Amino acid sequence: MEFSVNQIAGILNGAVVGDGSLLINNLGKIQEAQQGTVSFLSNPKYENYIYSTQATAVIVSHDFSPKKALNTTLIKVDNPYSSFTQLLEEYHKIISFQKSGVENPSFIGENSTTGANIYRGAFSYIGNHVSIGNNVKIYPHAYIGDYVHVGNNTIIHPGVKIYAQTKIGNHCVIHAGTVIGSDGFGFAPQPDGTYKTIPQLGNVIIEDHVDIGANSVIDCATLDSTIIRNGVKLDNLIQIAHNVEIGQNTVIAAQTGVSGSSKIGENCIIGGQVGIIGHLEIANKVSVAAKTGISKSVKTEGQILMGMIGFDRKSYLKSYAIFRNLPELQDRLKELEEKIVNSRTS
Amino acid sequence: MEFSVNQIAGILNGAVVGDGSLLINNLGKIQEAQQGTVSFLSNPKYENYIYSTQATAVIVSHDFSPKKALNTTLIKVDNPYSSFTQLLEEYHKIISFQKSGVENPSFIGENSTTGANIYRGAFSYIGNHVSIGNNVKIYPHAYIGDYVHVGNNTIIHPGVKIYAQTKIGNHCVIHAGTVIGSDGFGFAPQPDGTYKTIPQLGNVIIEDHVDIGANSVIDCATLDSTIIRNGVKLDNLIQIAHNVEIGQNTVIAAQTGVSGSSKIGENCIIGGQVGIIGHLEIANKVSVAAKTGISKSVKTEGQILMGMIGFDRKSYLKSYAIFRNLPELQDRLKELEEKIVNSRTS
Amino acid sequence: MEFSVNQIAGILNGAVVGDGSLLINNLGKIQEAQQGTVSFLSNPKYENYIYSTQATAVIVSHDFSPKKALNTTLIKVDNPYSSFTQLLEEYHKIISFQKSGVENPSFIGENSTTGANIYRGAFSYIGNHVSIGNNVKIYPHAYIGDYVHVGNNTIIHPGVKIYAQTKIGNHCVIHAGTVIGSDGFGFAPQPDGTYKTIPQLGNVIIEDHVDIGANSVIDCATLDSTIIRNGVKLDNLIQIAHNVEIGQNTVIAAQTGVSGSSKIGENCIIGGQVGIIGHLEIANKVSVAAKTGISKSVKTEGQILMGMIGFDRKSYLKSYAIFRNLPELQDRLKELEEKIVNSRTS
Repeated sequence: MEFSVNQIAGILNGAVVGDGSLLINNLGKIQEAQQGTVSFLSNPKYENYIYSTQATAVIVSHDFSPKKALNTTLIKVDNPYSSFTQLLEEYHKIISFQKSGVENPSFIGENSTTGANIYRGAFSYIGNHVSIGNNVKIYPHAYIGDYVHVGNNTIIHPGVKIYAQTKIGNHCVIHAGTVIGSDGFGFAPQPDGTYKTIPQLGNVIIEDHVDIGANSVIDCATLDSTIIRNGVKLDNLIQIAHNVEIGQNTVIAAQTGVSGSSKIGENCIIGGQVGIIGHLEIANKVSVAAKTGISKSVKTEGQILMGMIGFDRKSYLKSYAIFRNLPELQDRLKELEEKIVNSRTS
Repeated sequence: MEFSVNQIAGILNGAVVGDGSLLINNLGKIQEAQQGTVSFLSNPKYENYIYSTQATAVIVSHDFSPKKALNTTLIKVDNPYSSFTQLLEEYHKIISFQKSGVENPSFIGENSTTGANIYRGAFSYIGNHVSIGNNVKIYPHAYIGDYVHVGNNTIIHPGVKIYAQTKIGNHCVIHAGTVIGSDGFGFAPQPDGTYKTIPQLGNVIIEDHVDIGANSVIDCATLDSTIIRNGVKLDNLIQIAHNVEIGQNTVIAAQTGVSGSSKIGENCIIGGQVGIIGHLEIANKVSVAAKTGISKSVKTEGQILMGMIGFDRKSYLKSYAIFRNLPELQDRLKELEEKIVNSRTS
Repeated sequence: MEFSVNQIAGILNGAVVGDGSLLINNLGKIQEAQQGTVSFLSNPKYENYIYSTQATAVIVSHDFSPKKALNTTLIKVDNPYSSFTQLLEEYHKIISFQKSGVENPSFIGENSTTGANIYRGAFSYIGNHVSIGNNVKIYPHAYIGDYVHVGNNTIIHPGVKIYAQTKIGNHCVIHAGTVIGSDGFGFAPQPDGTYKTIPQLGNVIIEDHVDIGANSVIDCATLDSTIIRNGVKLDNLIQIAHNVEIGQNTVIAAQTGVSGSSKIGENCIIGGQVGIIGHLEIANKVSVAAKTGISKSVKTEGQILMGMIGFDRKSYLKSYAIFRNLPELQDRLKELEEKIVNSRTS
């Protein structure tokens, strides 16, 4: 994917100083940039790098005037940092959606439909009665079971497995290896010590603008639906059990697990390696520190929790500080005990 | 998959009141049911829903008599809840085993055999010298290495990877993305700070009626076998290291890890995000609370453990309650210290 | 893969006593060996097994003289244990690299090159502008995105997904289901409570002699590179976030997570289920106990850390021992309080 410096200046509404016909195929930091890269100079303390950079072009402020000779083309804009960010976003969008067409061999079952401008990578699998929207990108080795619905502008990365009956909205991104719709973990103990499978016949519903990291798992509900609401962001290696509901705009970091039937509020921020036991309700805007265990419902909006059995974060930190000094505290107690004994016996 | 109301009543030995020719393609709760769904009414407090439900049919007790007009067909039975459960189980069985035949392209190596009524999904891979039993369902993108044996009635979901030499029994279910037989994590430190690989040449043996969740990993043994006994239930994202043995009917929740050569007893219940270090023995019927770390062998049958370094659960909860109040306890100690000093100086 | 006893004796520079033409296809412990197996006898307390073993051949010391009749062929060497280890290593190397050629169907894009003696399993996918070195083994369902580079003698197990732009060195092993190069978890909060994606345009660089377990995830950097240095060993289900750097010869056990931009030193040993928060630096040769949380940089080389909020391991164990006895400590405090009150009121 190559653009001329002039094209990039056009996107940014900037002025070119130097050779605008040079070609750009990458974006990078000024101190590490190679030929073909466009970079930016925002913070004056990095100015020295611009005189030695290998970058083909550098985005600078309109009021930048070089103190030495330059080997790079300048693109002058109002705010170099936000222009660079804008460029990153445009570039990311182009990269993300550039694949299109159908690679062979790929598989599509009966009564399934796909929209316009779709990508179906080689070895991707679409079952029967599937409907796929416009501009959806299905990478190689993705598996989409029967009766699945996928909305528009959703990206399904390599090796994602989506079980039958799952519904996925618009503008979602699902990273490689993630599994959606596997059976909930439900087994009924029998008198002889064995377990009988409790059938898991529900599905998973993922609304719009949801991002899911790599190798995560979202189980289907026992009867109705496990639900991931609009704008939820899930990191890698996350476990979402059956019948869970995650409220909109909640963010969950890697390796966290949410047990069956728990309901997480909106706009929560949940750290990595957190464990939430089953059948709880977590209020909106709750924060949970990494590694915390949540063992009962959290009813106060905006609370911040921490600890193996989580409670108020500040209180936890105070207790933990004393925990670190427990040997000293024990010594003080012992000293007191001796004084008391001495004062009695003396 | 469609059945008439009459067919369902036949399975349940129930009596139809209304139109028995209507078609059913789903099971659901009475308050959420759509057309085509069969539901049930067991708890009288849900009775109101039956007068407005969209369900095509509702399973009710023989002694149910409607107080208003109904828009749904009734199936009258002795115990609506257990009839519905029976229906779920039948339906689940049918759904689970409905796929059959060979989709193309799929791959099967030399000297490999498959039994009757098998499903081999598109892009599934079977290596050389593999034997697969009857009624086995191998979903798309599943990988089965050389010399693997799979028993009868086992379901291998999409993208499962089974390394060479693995043995899997009958009536097992392995969910998407799970890896069985990858190399144990064994590296010998060298004098120069590098590590040398310790070859892992053993395998994994999975006995009968074992369920394994999605994206879990079971490593092969160094020389002999990592063993998962009859009736074990493993959730998602679980790590089972080399040479581990899990006793029969033990249940392990998501994101738990068992380190190398540890031997877990029978009928244990192990929570989520538990870590068990290597070379331990855990007795039968032991329970381990979520997030617990087990750092030494557990010899007492039926013990319940909890904590970062796990010990008796009740004791842990007592200690943790005091941990939460450590600031207050420290204040009391300080107060005592001051009293003692005052009583001496006064 | 079969060898004669004579061939094996040749590799080990050993002397055959018995029938050297017998065929060997497996290695195993003397007490469990089957026909076709070569085993070893090193520890004299296992001597009894040699008289009843089913092993076709047993490696023994030159000075071993049987006290009873033998049914097995002997291979006499200087040090039976190290000879057996040598055999394991040779056998492992042969097994690991035995696959070769291209199975069909497999996919390779435009402008991609592969070296000599390569294996491309059925349903493996290689994108455009990819370069693959000599003696690389790419198992079925592996996905290799555009512009990826893979060095020589690297093994990519089934279902590994390598995103575009990743660089992988020589002599690496990547186990099944692992994802390399997925988007870093970066989202900028917006005033309305939603999140905007921060484009992740960097890549992952994996140097030489790196081993990565199954179903792990390594995210790409935001702009430059997430880097895994020479000789790093990562276990299963590990999370490495964007912009992380892992120093050479560092070993990390299963289910550990390293958050964004943290830099781990060389020759560290990090246990399982550890969590390391973002933007930290960990010195060389640091050890971290299983389940520990690291919340600030570790500057002292060789430190050993433990705990939910990790600190010195010995101190943690002292504090934890008192934590276990907190109920007793609280009772002692209460007793003292009562004594003080009594001494004042008496």
